[in-house]
Amino acid sequence: MESRKAPNAPRRAAEPDGFVPAATRVARWIEDYRRHLPDLPVLSRVAPGDVAAALPEAPPELPEAWEAILADLDETVVPGLTHWNHPGFMAYFCSTSADPGVLAEFVAAAFNVNAMLWRTSPAATELEERMVDWTRRFVGLPAGFGGVIQDTASTSTFVALLAARHAALPFARERGLGGATAGPGRVYGSELAHSSLDKAVIAAGLGHRNLVRIEVDQAYGLRSEALDGALRGDRAAGRVPVMVCATIGTTSCASVDPVDAIADVCARHGVWLHVDAAYAGPAAALPELRSRFVGWERADSIVLNPHKWMSVPLDCSLLLSRRLDVFRASLALTPEYLASDSVATNLMDVGLALGRRFRALKLWFVFRREGAEGIRAMIRRHCELARAFADRVEAEPRLELAAPPSFGTVCFRAVPSDRGPANLVRDACAATRQLLERVNRDGRVFLSHTELDGRYAARLVVGGAHTGPAHLEAAWDSVTAALND
Amino acid sequence: MESRKAPNAPRRAAEPDGFVPAATRVARWIEDYRRHLPDLPVLSRVAPGDVAAALPEAPPELPEAWEAILADLDETVVPGLTHWNHPGFMAYFCSTSADPGVLAEFVAAAFNVNAMLWRTSPAATELEERMVDWTRRFVGLPAGFGGVIQDTASTSTFVALLAARHAALPFARERGLGGATAGPGRVYGSELAHSSLDKAVIAAGLGHRNLVRIEVDQAYGLRSEALDGALRGDRAAGRVPVMVCATIGTTSCASVDPVDAIADVCARHGVWLHVDAAYAGPAAALPELRSRFVGWERADSIVLNPHKWMSVPLDCSLLLSRRLDVFRASLALTPEYLASDSVATNLMDVGLALGRRFRALKLWFVFRREGAEGIRAMIRRHCELARAFADRVEAEPRLELAAPPSFGTVCFRAVPSDRGPANLVRDACAATRQLLERVNRDGRVFLSHTELDGRYAARLVVGGAHTGPAHLEAAWDSVTAALND
Repeated sequence: MESRKAPNAPRRAAEPDGFVPAATRVARWIEDYRRHLPDLPVLSRVAPGDVAAALPEAPPELPEAWEAILADLDETVVPGLTHWNHPGFMAYFCSTSADPGVLAEFVAAAFNVNAMLWRTSPAATELEERMVDWTRRFVGLPAGFGGVIQDTASTSTFVALLAARHAALPFARERGLGGATAGPGRVYGSELAHSSLDKAVIAAGLGHRNLVRIEVDQAYGLRSEALDGALRGDRAAGRVPVMVCATIGTTSCASVDPVDAIADVCARHGVWLHVDAAYAGPAAALPELRSRFVGWERADSIVLNPHKWMSVPLDCSLLLSRRLDVFRASLALTPEYLASDSVATNLMDVGLALGRRFRALKLWFVFRREGAEGIRAMIRRHCELARAFADRVEAEPRLELAAPPSFGTVCFRAVPSDRGPANLVRDACAATRQLLERVNRDGRVFLSHTELDGRYAARLVVGGAHTGPAHLEAAWDSVTAALND
Repeated sequence: MESRKAPNAPRRAAEPDGFVPAATRVARWIEDYRRHLPDLPVLSRVAPGDVAAALPEAPPELPEAWEAILADLDETVVPGLTHWNHPGFMAYFCSTSADPGVLAEFVAAAFNVNAMLWRTSPAATELEERMVDWTRRFVGLPAGFGGVIQDTASTSTFVALLAARHAALPFARERGLGGATAGPGRVYGSELAHSSLDKAVIAAGLGHRNLVRIEVDQAYGLRSEALDGALRGDRAAGRVPVMVCATIGTTSCASVDPVDAIADVCARHGVWLHVDAAYAGPAAALPELRSRFVGWERADSIVLNPHKWMSVPLDCSLLLSRRLDVFRASLALTPEYLASDSVATNLMDVGLALGRRFRALKLWFVFRREGAEGIRAMIRRHCELARAFADRVEAEPRLELAAPPSFGTVCFRAVPSDRGPANLVRDACAATRQLLERVNRDGRVFLSHTELDGRYAARLVVGGAHTGPAHLEAAWDSVTAALND
């Protein structure tokens, strides 16, 4: 082994075999993993502590061979994974990931540039701005929406809330909310708005109780007249509306808030409208689904996650806004060591993180290798497969839809019935929970759950880049087998 | 070309040549890029808009070939990069990145798992916890410190501030800071504390003016007696101390705050102590540098970035704390759809982001391929090279050190002199600025700047995984050439 301690020699020992052979070996390992993937249970079967028990307590002092690392990937890591790229992964919202995005991450890690300032990599900044604009065009939003790529929707929504806070409570940046002479700032979302909104409200110092949950209608869309009433009441009581979050594609059941009506309400009350389209946003690229997005072009800010439904690996969340100047006013500051004479955009000004990975690269690779039409075709296929699954649920007397199927998402539950098998307990929640446990233990697919109207529901989302009819067939087999168990 | 529109077939067109050939082609491209890297100017020479002008305004409708994409990488992206992995990159703090970390990112993107919950990939959670613990041992912190991996130090510090806010102002989570009956919450850092602290204070709703900048001593370390005075004064005035941020390795000049004395002050006043060791933290693994970290084991929270000095690509920031329960109390909430019966840890509870990449993988690969001793050897080499450069600065009458050299960081400035070349203007700031411009135009190395005592200073950081004596020689050549210009 070559000496690793020579203090004055650039260290190269990490690549004894050269970079390309090592990368090729890793690529072959990945291909092998993928080949076996369909035979692996989607949801990991390890018990808490199993993986940790297989890992040494301290790091090695000396380098180990690639063989040892790849063997440990096989023996320790893979059994401990819940396989998000498995075609049978139908839980949560899938994080789709196809080859162009994976290879882009490989290149981005090799570049390892930081897109904090324009000058710290002009191409990273300008490609990011262009990818934001490509996506804007792709989903049919008007010019005037600019944006940045954040890591996740949680961050995008939080940063949007900071901008909205700045618009409503401009003293907060300098004096803090504790110095308020006005009443408390209030934030509004439906009962189904994502939990990242709760975290954002807490983190921003507004207080969790100032997140107002507005009731939903039968289709689980926010009741805009209830929102209007809440805003009126708060204004009358001296409270300060800060932001309304409308959702297109809720996490619970992919329901759609009436954004156009909500935009009317927001305009009337002068409140910042944030649209959470983290999941469903890319579907706006399909003409047949455009009607579900009416009004979102009136939003002050929008979040849309390419890592959810555009074949881009985690993490890649687009934050779009017509008011980026307010984002900058809410957060930007430039310490001397980052001062530059550049007139160009410094994307660190629109967000908390200073270190910014070259995330635009994967969006670029995906757009170019898939084509806009390829992405649309994938989303269309997912929606059709979900619709077909929902039809089967409707035709099965022992099951019922828990919400209207929406985009690639189907929520359903067991119907407790005297005619049902004796081991299906009467209570629908317990029955559904048991059904889900059986399906996930079976391992061919992985479904998650939600709660709708206070009732437990199983939840299936078609969103994997490689998910096809056979996998939905497996899902149905698994569900019916569980029903018959 | 195969049809990409078949709605019922899993789409495979992204990999017409198979994954391994495509990955190998990309790996060869990366190797080629690296081969040419030493000949490229470190700082990009494009003008604002150059890269954007080379990019189409809209995404392609149909897939393009890898050849076209790789050609565009060469023609459009590479000239627009500031090459952070260039051995001549000596600006800011380097984000070191060697092969094991790059290949780990490749694997992580292929897995594309989300480590939000234990069950959503047990191995990602347990490997993350173990890598946090390996790093804790590596830098010699006592057991009792646990933690998570965040994206960047900005996020780690922000989340630490939320925990500290919860400890000091526990009503804030529910009622918000606007409902305060207490005085405003205050945060303390030295004049050289990082700007992410400003952003954190603003974002948390505490107000920028409640960030108290404490004066520094001649070595640019925070004056602990001044901190004590500020805390006394604030307490007496009814203000509420929330957090003190001490820095080991400031961004400006890598100076070290007297953490042990600061910990005494914090203990006396009952204030949360956060230590920002984002840059220098890994150097605690070197016995000869341990004395600079005395007292950090008394911190409530510590941030340390493996992506800065442990050969791990962006982003990988360790947030360590003895009080993770307070972090959870400040932010955790579990919506129904994420509820699980698991007794295991759900890392999403310690942070804002729900989507969490499998960042532990790269730390694991690096520890194993480099060995703890390999990482120590690299850091030692960097510090020695920086010290040698500082010696040259001291020996050169036309230059002076602007701060004591510290870790891998050297700050220096031009000494305006009658004996100097006529085109060096008298004012030292202007002269140093001009010197830096010449060096960066030369292109062999890239240095950044800072301000110390209100005076402009050039700043050189040795931190690249492949930076060796030859590159410091080039830096010195470039600086002296600029002096003689």
